Amino acid sequence: MKRLQRQLAFVRELDKAKTVLRQNPLADASRRENDAEHMWHFAVAALLLAEHAASPVNTGRVVLMGLIHDIVEIDAGDAFVYDDQARADKAVRERAAADRLFAMLPPDQGRVLREAWDEFEEGKTAEARFAASIDRLLPLMANHAARGGAWAVHGVKAQRVRERNASIADGAPALAAYAAELIEEAVGRGWLCED
Amino acid sequence: MKRLQRQLAFVRELDKAKTVLRQNPLADASRRENDAEHMWHFAVAALLLAEHAASPVNTGRVVLMGLIHDIVEIDAGDAFVYDDQARADKAVRERAAADRLFAMLPPDQGRVLREAWDEFEEGKTAEARFAASIDRLLPLMANHAARGGAWAVHGVKAQRVRERNASIADGAPALAAYAAELIEEAVGRGWLCED
Repeated sequence: MKRLQRQLAFVRELDKAKTVLRQNPLADASRRENDAEHMWHFAVAALLLAEHAASPVNTGRVVLMGLIHDIVEIDAGDAFVYDDQARADKAVRERAAADRLFAMLPPDQGRVLREAWDEFEEGKTAEARFAASIDRLLPLMANHAARGGAWAVHGVKAQRVRERNASIADGAPALAAYAAELIEEAVGRGWLCED
Repeated sequence: MKRLQRQLAFVRELDKAKTVLRQNPLADASRRENDAEHMWHFAVAALLLAEHAASPVNTGRVVLMGLIHDIVEIDAGDAFVYDDQARADKAVRERAAADRLFAMLPPDQGRVLREAWDEFEEGKTAEARFAASIDRLLPLMANHAARGGAWAVHGVKAQRVRERNASIADGAPALAAYAAELIEEAVGRGWLCED
Protein backbone atom coordinates (compact mmCIF):
# COMPACT_ATOMS: atom_id res chain seq x y z
CA MET A 1 0.00 0.00 0.00
CA LYS A 2 1.15 3.51 -0.71
CA ARG A 3 2.48 5.57 2.18
CA LEU A 4 -0.35 8.14 2.08
CA GLN A 5 -2.98 5.39 1.93
CA ARG A 6 -1.59 3.78 5.09
CA GLN A 7 -1.55 7.12 6.89
CA LEU A 8 -5.13 7.87 5.87
CA ALA A 9 -6.34 4.40 6.89
CA PHE A 10 -4.83 5.03 10.34
CA VAL A 11 -6.43 8.49 10.56
CA ARG A 12 -9.79 6.90 9.69
CA GLU A 13 -9.25 4.17 12.30
CA LEU A 14 -8.61 6.80 14.99
CA ASP A 15 -12.24 7.87 14.75
CA LYS A 16 -13.13 4.84 16.88
CA ALA A 17 -11.44 6.39 19.95
CA LYS A 18 -14.39 8.80 20.02
CA THR A 19 -16.66 5.90 20.95
CA VAL A 20 -14.54 4.33 23.70
CA LEU A 21 -16.10 5.47 26.97
CA ARG A 22 -14.06 6.05 30.10
CA GLN A 23 -15.42 5.74 33.63
CA ASN A 24 -15.17 9.41 34.59
CA PRO A 25 -17.86 11.85 33.51
CA LEU A 26 -17.47 15.26 31.90
CA ALA A 27 -17.07 18.05 34.45
CA ASP A 28 -20.75 18.97 33.93
CA ALA A 29 -21.73 15.38 34.78
CA SER A 30 -23.86 15.16 31.61
CA ARG A 31 -22.31 11.91 30.37
CA ARG A 32 -19.13 9.80 30.44
CA GLU A 33 -16.02 11.10 28.74
CA ASN A 34 -14.55 9.29 25.74
CA ASP A 35 -10.91 8.58 24.91
CA ALA A 36 -10.60 11.17 22.13
CA GLU A 37 -11.79 13.95 24.42
CA HIS A 38 -9.47 12.76 27.17
CA MET A 39 -6.42 12.62 24.88
CA TRP A 40 -7.12 16.17 23.68
CA HIS A 41 -7.54 17.48 27.22
CA PHE A 42 -4.38 15.65 28.27
CA ALA A 43 -2.31 17.15 25.45
CA VAL A 44 -3.36 20.74 26.15
CA ALA A 45 -3.02 20.34 29.92
CA ALA A 46 0.46 18.85 29.51
CA LEU A 47 1.47 21.76 27.31
CA LEU A 48 0.35 24.31 29.89
CA LEU A 49 1.45 22.52 33.06
CA ALA A 50 4.84 21.17 31.93
CA GLU A 51 6.70 23.68 34.12
CA HIS A 52 5.35 21.82 37.17
CA ALA A 53 6.98 18.51 36.24
CA ALA A 54 9.18 17.02 38.96
CA SER A 55 12.14 17.09 36.55
CA PRO A 56 12.44 19.20 33.38
CA VAL A 57 10.60 17.56 30.49
CA ASN A 58 10.56 17.75 26.71
CA THR A 59 7.03 19.13 26.38
CA GLY A 60 6.57 17.98 22.79
CA ARG A 61 7.32 14.43 23.88
CA VAL A 62 4.69 14.58 26.64
CA VAL A 63 2.14 16.02 24.21
CA LEU A 64 2.86 13.18 21.77
CA MET A 65 2.33 10.64 24.58
CA GLY A 66 -0.92 12.34 25.51
CA LEU A 67 -2.20 12.31 21.94
CA ILE A 68 -1.71 8.56 21.48
CA HIS A 69 -1.59 6.93 24.92
CA ASP A 70 -5.13 5.52 24.90
CA ILE A 71 -5.64 4.61 21.24
CA VAL A 72 -4.91 0.97 22.12
CA GLU A 73 -8.31 1.04 23.84
CA ILE A 74 -9.90 1.05 20.37
CA ASP A 75 -9.26 -2.70 20.56
CA ALA A 76 -8.65 -3.32 24.26
CA GLY A 77 -11.38 -1.17 25.81
CA ASP A 78 -11.11 0.99 28.91
CA ALA A 79 -10.08 -0.73 32.16
CA PHE A 80 -11.31 1.24 35.16
CA VAL A 81 -8.38 2.20 37.31
CA TYR A 82 -10.05 0.85 40.46
CA ASP A 83 -11.23 -2.42 38.86
CA ASP A 84 -8.47 -4.92 39.64
CA GLN A 85 -10.06 -7.70 37.60
CA ALA A 86 -10.40 -5.67 34.41
CA ARG A 87 -6.81 -4.52 34.82
CA ALA A 88 -5.35 -8.00 35.25
CA ASP A 89 -4.95 -8.85 31.55
CA LYS A 90 -4.97 -5.24 30.41
CA ALA A 91 -1.27 -5.21 29.51
CA VAL A 92 -1.61 -8.24 27.24
CA ARG A 93 -4.67 -6.90 25.44
CA GLU A 94 -3.18 -3.46 25.02
CA ARG A 95 0.08 -4.80 23.63
CA ALA A 96 -1.83 -6.79 21.01
CA ALA A 97 -3.78 -3.62 20.17
CA ALA A 98 -0.57 -1.62 19.83
CA ASP A 99 0.86 -4.31 17.52
CA ARG A 100 -2.15 -4.08 15.23
CA LEU A 101 -2.74 -0.33 15.27
CA PHE A 102 0.80 0.99 14.89
CA ALA A 103 1.46 -1.56 12.12
CA MET A 104 -1.18 0.22 10.03
CA LEU A 105 1.21 3.16 9.62
CA PRO A 106 4.33 3.39 7.45
CA PRO A 107 7.05 1.61 9.49
CA ASP A 108 8.99 4.76 10.42
CA GLN A 109 5.89 6.47 11.82
CA GLY A 110 4.59 3.32 13.46
CA ARG A 111 7.94 3.03 15.25
CA VAL A 112 7.82 6.64 16.52
CA LEU A 113 4.34 6.21 17.95
CA ARG A 114 5.07 2.77 19.40
CA GLU A 115 8.18 4.07 21.13
CA ALA A 116 6.22 6.95 22.67
CA TRP A 117 3.51 4.54 23.82
CA ASP A 118 6.04 2.05 25.25
CA GLU A 119 7.82 4.89 27.05
CA PHE A 120 4.54 6.06 28.56
CA GLU A 121 3.60 2.54 29.65
CA GLU A 122 7.03 1.86 31.18
CA GLY A 123 6.85 5.08 33.16
CA LYS A 124 10.58 5.45 33.68
CA THR A 125 11.49 8.73 32.00
CA ALA A 126 10.72 12.19 33.40
CA GLU A 127 8.32 12.67 30.47
CA ALA A 128 6.46 9.41 31.15
CA ARG A 129 6.19 10.14 34.87
CA PHE A 130 4.84 13.63 34.22
CA ALA A 131 2.45 12.23 31.62
CA ALA A 132 1.15 9.73 34.19
CA SER A 133 0.49 12.64 36.56
CA ILE A 134 -1.62 14.43 33.96
CA ASP A 135 -3.40 11.18 33.11
CA ARG A 136 -4.42 10.75 36.76
CA LEU A 137 -5.12 14.38 37.57
CA LEU A 138 -7.68 14.96 34.82
CA PRO A 139 -10.21 12.25 35.78
CA LEU A 140 -9.79 13.27 39.43
CA MET A 141 -10.70 16.84 38.45
CA ALA A 142 -13.67 15.53 36.48
CA ASN A 143 -14.98 13.35 39.31
CA HIS A 144 -14.61 16.29 41.70
CA ALA A 145 -16.35 18.73 39.34
CA ALA A 146 -19.17 16.23 38.80
CA ARG A 147 -19.59 15.87 42.58
CA GLY A 148 -18.65 12.22 42.78
CA GLY A 149 -18.65 10.91 39.22
CA ALA A 150 -17.03 7.49 38.92
CA TRP A 151 -16.22 7.43 42.65
CA ALA A 152 -19.91 7.48 43.48
CA VAL A 153 -20.94 5.10 40.70
CA HIS A 154 -18.36 2.49 41.68
CA GLY A 155 -18.25 3.10 45.44
CA VAL A 156 -14.56 3.99 45.39
CA LYS A 157 -13.25 4.96 48.85
CA ALA A 158 -11.14 7.98 49.75
CA GLN A 159 -8.14 5.95 50.83
CA ARG A 160 -7.73 4.36 47.37
CA VAL A 161 -7.94 7.75 45.71
CA ARG A 162 -5.35 9.15 48.13
CA GLU A 163 -3.02 6.21 47.48
CA ARG A 164 -3.34 6.70 43.78
CA ASN A 165 -2.57 10.38 44.14
CA ALA A 166 0.92 9.41 45.35
CA SER A 167 1.76 8.69 41.72
CA ILE A 168 0.74 12.22 40.72
CA ALA A 169 3.31 13.45 43.25
CA ASP A 170 5.98 11.35 41.58
CA GLY A 171 5.66 13.27 38.31
CA ALA A 172 4.38 16.66 39.48
CA PRO A 173 4.39 17.54 43.21
CA ALA A 174 2.48 20.82 42.74
CA LEU A 175 -0.31 19.02 40.88
CA ALA A 176 -0.47 16.37 43.60
CA ALA A 177 -0.95 19.12 46.19
CA TYR A 178 -3.89 20.44 44.14
CA ALA A 179 -5.27 16.92 43.74
CA ALA A 180 -5.05 16.42 47.52
CA GLU A 181 -7.14 19.57 48.02
CA LEU A 182 -9.78 18.24 45.63
CA ILE A 183 -9.85 14.87 47.38
CA GLU A 184 -10.27 16.36 50.84
CA GLU A 185 -12.93 18.77 49.62
CA ALA A 186 -14.76 15.86 47.99
CA VAL A 187 -14.62 13.94 51.27
CA GLY A 188 -15.83 16.99 53.18
CA ARG A 189 -18.79 17.43 50.87
CA GLY A 190 -19.72 13.75 50.83
CA TRP A 191 -18.80 13.17 47.17
CA LEU A 192 -16.18 10.61 48.20
CA CYS A 193 -16.62 8.31 51.22
CA GLU A 194 -14.01 7.52 53.84
CA ASP A 195 -15.04 3.86 54.16
CA MET B 1 -4.18 34.78 41.27
CA LYS B 2 -1.26 32.40 41.43
CA ARG B 3 0.18 31.10 38.18
CA LEU B 4 -0.84 27.47 38.80
CA GLN B 5 -4.37 28.50 39.77
CA ARG B 6 -4.80 30.36 36.48
CA GLN B 7 -3.51 27.41 34.52
CA LEU B 8 -5.84 25.01 36.32
CA ALA B 9 -8.85 27.30 35.85
CA PHE B 10 -8.14 27.30 32.11
CA VAL B 11 -7.75 23.50 32.06
CA ARG B 12 -11.12 23.22 33.83
CA GLU B 13 -12.69 25.65 31.35
CA LEU B 14 -11.49 23.54 28.43
CA ASP B 15 -13.89 20.80 29.46
CA LYS B 16 -16.67 22.79 27.82
CA ALA B 17 -15.23 22.12 24.35
CA LYS B 18 -16.45 18.55 24.83
CA THR B 19 -20.03 19.81 24.67
CA VAL B 20 -19.75 22.06 21.60
CA LEU B 21 -21.26 20.06 18.74
CA ARG B 22 -20.05 20.38 15.17
CA GLN B 23 -22.17 19.72 12.10
CA ASN B 24 -20.36 16.63 10.88
CA PRO B 25 -21.06 13.24 12.42
CA LEU B 26 -18.61 10.63 13.65
CA ALA B 27 -17.50 8.26 10.90
CA ASP B 28 -19.93 5.63 12.23
CA ALA B 29 -22.79 8.17 11.89
CA SER B 30 -23.88 7.49 15.50
CA ARG B 31 -23.95 11.15 16.54
CA ARG B 32 -22.41 14.57 15.83
CA GLU B 33 -18.76 15.16 16.64
CA ASN B 34 -17.73 17.66 19.31
CA ASP B 35 -14.90 20.17 19.27
CA ALA B 36 -12.65 18.30 21.72
CA GLU B 37 -12.77 15.15 19.59
CA HIS B 38 -12.13 17.16 16.45
CA MET B 39 -9.13 18.99 17.92
CA TRP B 40 -7.61 15.68 18.99
CA HIS B 41 -8.15 14.09 15.60
CA PHE B 42 -6.72 17.20 13.94
CA ALA B 43 -3.56 17.16 16.07
CA VAL B 44 -2.78 13.48 15.40
CA ALA B 45 -3.63 13.76 11.70
CA ALA B 46 -1.41 16.83 11.34
CA LEU B 47 1.45 14.99 13.01
CA LEU B 48 1.18 12.06 10.62
CA LEU B 49 0.41 13.94 7.40
CA ALA B 50 2.80 16.89 7.77
CA GLU B 51 5.08 15.54 5.02
CA HIS B 52 2.28 16.25 2.53
CA ALA B 53 2.17 19.98 3.26
CA ALA B 54 2.56 22.19 0.18
CA SER B 55 5.63 23.80 1.79
CA PRO B 56 7.74 22.36 4.63
CA VAL B 57 6.07 23.02 7.99
CA ASN B 58 7.06 23.09 11.65
CA THR B 59 4.93 20.14 12.73
CA GLY B 60 4.85 21.14 16.39
CA ARG B 61 3.39 24.48 15.40
CA VAL B 62 0.62 22.84 13.37
CA VAL B 63 -0.15 20.46 16.24
CA LEU B 64 -0.42 23.43 18.61
CA MET B 65 -2.84 25.16 16.22
CA GLY B 66 -4.87 21.98 15.98
CA LEU B 67 -5.08 21.59 19.75
CA ILE B 68 -6.46 25.08 20.33
CA HIS B 69 -8.04 26.32 17.09
CA ASP B 70 -11.67 25.72 18.07
CA ILE B 71 -11.66 26.50 21.80
CA VAL B 72 -13.13 29.93 21.02
CA GLU B 73 -16.31 28.03 20.16
CA ILE B 74 -16.77 27.46 23.92
CA ASP B 75 -18.21 31.00 23.83
CA ALA B 76 -18.91 31.58 20.14
CA GLY B 77 -20.46 28.24 19.15
CA ASP B 78 -19.89 26.32 15.94
CA ALA B 79 -20.71 28.09 12.68
CA PHE B 80 -21.46 25.58 9.93
CA VAL B 81 -19.09 26.10 7.07
CA TYR B 82 -21.91 26.21 4.51
CA ASP B 83 -24.15 28.52 6.58
CA ASP B 84 -23.34 32.02 5.33
CA GLN B 85 -25.58 33.74 7.87
CA ALA B 86 -24.03 32.05 10.90
CA ARG B 87 -20.59 32.86 9.55
CA ALA B 88 -21.24 36.57 9.03
CA ASP B 89 -20.46 37.74 12.57
CA LYS B 90 -18.35 34.70 13.41
CA ALA B 91 -15.05 36.59 13.39
CA VAL B 92 -16.32 39.18 15.86
CA ARG B 93 -17.73 36.61 18.28
CA GLU B 94 -14.65 34.44 18.07
CA ARG B 95 -12.29 37.33 18.72
CA ALA B 96 -14.24 38.24 21.86
CA ALA B 97 -14.04 34.60 22.94
CA ALA B 98 -10.29 34.54 22.35
CA ASP B 99 -9.91 37.73 24.40
CA ARG B 100 -11.71 36.16 27.34
CA LEU B 101 -10.32 32.64 27.20
CA PHE B 102 -6.64 33.32 26.61
CA ALA B 103 -6.70 36.03 29.30
CA MET B 104 -7.47 33.31 31.86
CA LEU B 105 -3.91 32.03 31.45
CA PRO B 106 -0.68 33.56 32.78
CA PRO B 107 0.16 36.33 30.26
CA ASP B 108 3.13 34.55 28.67
CA GLN B 109 1.10 31.41 27.96
CA GLY B 110 -1.97 33.34 26.90
CA ARG B 111 0.20 35.16 24.37
CA VAL B 112 1.64 31.93 22.94
CA LEU B 113 -1.82 30.42 22.43
CA ARG B 114 -3.30 33.64 21.08
CA GLU B 115 -0.49 34.00 18.55
CA ALA B 116 -1.02 30.43 17.36
CA TRP B 117 -4.77 31.04 17.07
CA ASP B 118 -4.30 34.36 15.23
CA GLU B 119 -1.82 32.72 12.87
CA PHE B 120 -4.31 29.94 12.13
CA GLU B 121 -7.14 32.41 11.53
CA GLU B 122 -5.03 34.64 9.27
CA GLY B 123 -4.02 31.63 7.19
CA LYS B 124 -0.88 33.18 5.75
CA THR B 125 1.97 30.94 6.91
CA ALA B 126 2.72 27.49 5.52
CA GLU B 127 1.71 26.06 8.90
CA ALA B 128 -1.65 27.86 8.92
CA ARG B 129 -2.41 26.84 5.34
CA PHE B 130 -1.59 23.21 6.05
CA ALA B 131 -3.64 23.37 9.26
CA ALA B 132 -6.61 24.67 7.27
CA SER B 133 -6.26 21.69 4.93
CA ILE B 134 -6.46 19.25 7.84
CA ASP B 135 -9.37 21.21 9.31
CA ARG B 136 -11.30 20.80 6.06
CA LEU B 137 -10.24 17.27 5.20
CA LEU B 138 -11.39 15.65 8.45
CA PRO B 139 -15.10 16.63 8.32
CA LEU B 140 -15.13 15.73 4.63
CA MET B 141 -13.81 12.26 5.54
CA ALA B 142 -16.46 12.01 8.28
CA ASN B 143 -19.33 13.03 6.00
CA HIS B 144 -18.11 10.52 3.40
CA ALA B 145 -17.74 7.70 5.95
CA ALA B 146 -21.21 8.46 7.33
CA ARG B 147 -22.65 8.29 3.78
CA GLY B 148 -23.78 11.90 3.62
CA GLY B 149 -23.60 13.26 7.14
CA ALA B 150 -23.92 17.03 7.27
CA TRP B 151 -24.18 17.26 3.46
CA ALA B 152 -27.40 15.27 3.56
CA VAL B 153 -28.80 16.99 6.66
CA HIS B 154 -28.21 20.48 5.25
CA GLY B 155 -28.73 19.75 1.55
CA VAL B 156 -25.23 20.86 0.63
CA LYS B 157 -24.50 20.47 -3.09
CA ALA B 158 -21.44 18.87 -4.67
CA GLN B 159 -20.26 22.08 -6.31
CA ARG B 160 -19.88 23.89 -2.98
CA VAL B 161 -17.91 20.98 -1.54
CA ARG B 162 -15.66 20.92 -4.61
CA GLU B 163 -15.09 24.67 -4.36
CA ARG B 164 -14.18 24.36 -0.73
CA ASN B 165 -11.76 21.57 -1.53
CA ALA B 166 -9.67 24.08 -3.46
CA SER B 167 -8.46 25.39 -0.10
CA ILE B 168 -7.27 21.91 0.85
CA ALA B 169 -5.14 21.98 -2.29
CA ASP B 170 -3.59 25.26 -1.19
CA GLY B 171 -2.09 23.65 1.94
CA ALA B 172 -1.70 20.03 0.87
CA PRO B 173 -2.17 19.01 -2.79
CA ALA B 174 -1.96 15.26 -2.10
CA LEU B 175 -4.71 15.51 0.51
CA ALA B 176 -6.86 17.51 -1.91
CA ALA B 177 -6.50 14.73 -4.47
CA TYR B 178 -7.75 12.26 -1.87
CA ALA B 179 -10.59 14.61 -0.91
CA ALA B 180 -11.57 14.88 -4.58
CA GLU B 181 -11.83 11.09 -4.77
CA LEU B 182 -14.10 11.05 -1.72
CA ILE B 183 -16.29 13.79 -3.18
CA GLU B 184 -16.71 12.05 -6.52
CA GLU B 185 -17.40 8.71 -4.84
CA ALA B 186 -19.99 10.40 -2.62
CA VAL B 187 -21.65 11.89 -5.70
CA GLY B 188 -21.57 8.52 -7.47
CA ARG B 189 -23.23 6.79 -4.53
CA GLY B 190 -25.85 9.49 -4.02
CA TRP B 191 -24.50 10.72 -0.65
CA LEU B 192 -23.88 14.18 -2.14
CA CYS B 193 -26.16 15.72 -4.78
CA GLU B 194 -25.03 17.52 -7.91
CA ASP B 195 -27.80 20.14 -7.75
